[in-house]
Amino acid sequence: MRHPSRIKIVEVGPRDGLQNEAKPVSVEIKVGLIDRLTETGLAAIESGSFVSPKWVPQMAATAEVMAAIKRRPGVSYPVLTPNLQGLEAALAARAEEVAVFAAASETFSQKNINCSIAESLERFAPLAARARAEGLRVRGYVSCVLGCPYEGPIAPAAVAEVAGRLAAMGCYEISLGDTVGVGTPARAQAMIDAVAARLPVEMLAAHFHDTYGQALANLLAVMERGIMVMDSSVAGLGGCPYAKGAAGNVASEDLVYMLNGMGIHTGVDLDKLIAAGKFICSALDRATGSKVARARG
Amino acid sequence: MRHPSRIKIVEVGPRDGLQNEAKPVSVEIKVGLIDRLTETGLAAIESGSFVSPKWVPQMAATAEVMAAIKRRPGVSYPVLTPNLQGLEAALAARAEEVAVFAAASETFSQKNINCSIAESLERFAPLAARARAEGLRVRGYVSCVLGCPYEGPIAPAAVAEVAGRLAAMGCYEISLGDTVGVGTPARAQAMIDAVAARLPVEMLAAHFHDTYGQALANLLAVMERGIMVMDSSVAGLGGCPYAKGAAGNVASEDLVYMLNGMGIHTGVDLDKLIAAGKFICSALDRATGSKVARARG
Repeated sequence: MRHPSRIKIVEVGPRDGLQNEAKPVSVEIKVGLIDRLTETGLAAIESGSFVSPKWVPQMAATAEVMAAIKRRPGVSYPVLTPNLQGLEAALAARAEEVAVFAAASETFSQKNINCSIAESLERFAPLAARARAEGLRVRGYVSCVLGCPYEGPIAPAAVAEVAGRLAAMGCYEISLGDTVGVGTPARAQAMIDAVAARLPVEMLAAHFHDTYGQALANLLAVMERGIMVMDSSVAGLGGCPYAKGAAGNVASEDLVYMLNGMGIHTGVDLDKLIAAGKFICSALDRATGSKVARARG
Repeated sequence: MRHPSRIKIVEVGPRDGLQNEAKPVSVEIKVGLIDRLTETGLAAIESGSFVSPKWVPQMAATAEVMAAIKRRPGVSYPVLTPNLQGLEAALAARAEEVAVFAAASETFSQKNINCSIAESLERFAPLAARARAEGLRVRGYVSCVLGCPYEGPIAPAAVAEVAGRLAAMGCYEISLGDTVGVGTPARAQAMIDAVAARLPVEMLAAHFHDTYGQALANLLAVMERGIMVMDSSVAGLGGCPYAKGAAGNVASEDLVYMLNGMGIHTGVDLDKLIAAGKFICSALDRATGSKVARARG
């Protein structure tokens, strides 16, 4: 089995993980989580989203969070920016990296962000240009890369097209999201192959949800195709353990455990990661979604 | 990624899954589960264990279970037999396949079955001979193949040695068990490579517990090494969702979902499998350990 000697993990728990929590999570708790994640050695911690609080109330206090966290040099704290207004907020918050997001499914794009894929990309182009002019890195997300809740299977070519457009506008990294977690290993590889035929595989990240329990197997499969950046969520945040069918991103602890066992360097301290997961699960009064955390007690 | 065109799944839920349930499970419920599993198209359903009820009270009624299930021609219903007395009971119950079990860890062997590995193999030799003389197939289990709760890591050579001894006494299939679920993909492959250097890989089965969330990734990894037989447990039976760190075998539903998605034939109807899982979870009043079952609602 071919695999890289190191993997960069992008921790998305504080944003993708928490954004769907039903109860408000205080700034103090978010800062406590991000600061603990910083201590683990992670290189990137997605820390919030400058979207309208009307749409995502849980992210309303991102400016306060960004002001309060203890930033460590060399660690990136990206924030999502849906439009130029969001970018201004990110600049004011001294973000060094922002993220834009498009879908590989036309129907999902319409339902999720109220515009076509083409329109969303047109909107992001000036944002990305402005961000780069200000010296920020821009990350691009593509959602529904292995399936759409409305359209079902998504053609790998459609994913490659959107990824290529995001790269063309200056995104340095493209995160490919199995938003509904329906993917399986061979399809994940075929999707990566299609995108990697267009863009260097080093630019690509895998962002897999664990709804059907497939995320870790899919990550192993795409690692064989050269993927070296993986998004994950501490304690598997992102789903609600009480809601049917909901599951978050692959748990960071379970991913680090696998990579440690394979001798692949991540720079992440697993014990500290488990402790960060315990902190947020205790604060949210919920069970961890990480089997490693559960096994370690 | 190389993979076989078909995988044989050995369902171990009624035995390995239920044997640690704290509350007694009635014969009626066990039969209800096995009959539903038969309807799914599974080729092998481990149905009980003729061990002393003093040691495993949950398996005390295996004879009644074997008498009551509706056997489908072509489906195997193996039972565990620790000694000649157990084999006699299996013969009386018209079992067509029995299983014997040894450990790859000396300390685990002592703690689990009160004898050394060598002594356990010596005991099984006449049992296997007698079983084969009666026309029964004999399956061999090796436990702790990727780690031992007492000794830690286990050398692949030790696993190969025990597997070779079991094959030499006439076992037609050797199930390699990551009993504590600590394995990761590269180690799982190295272990399979060591055993496959001694025995045909077609004789080997992977039996992985999901304690650390690694089971499905490990199965994918060993499939690349030619493994075509996999043990799994409907609803992930075998752990207790209320006990810290406990987790069962990989959930059959999640395994079938992965294989379906890869176009690998199993002969198993996923909807019927999910229904069988719902039946037993409802009877035991516990949450399913299968993410696919949870996602499908």
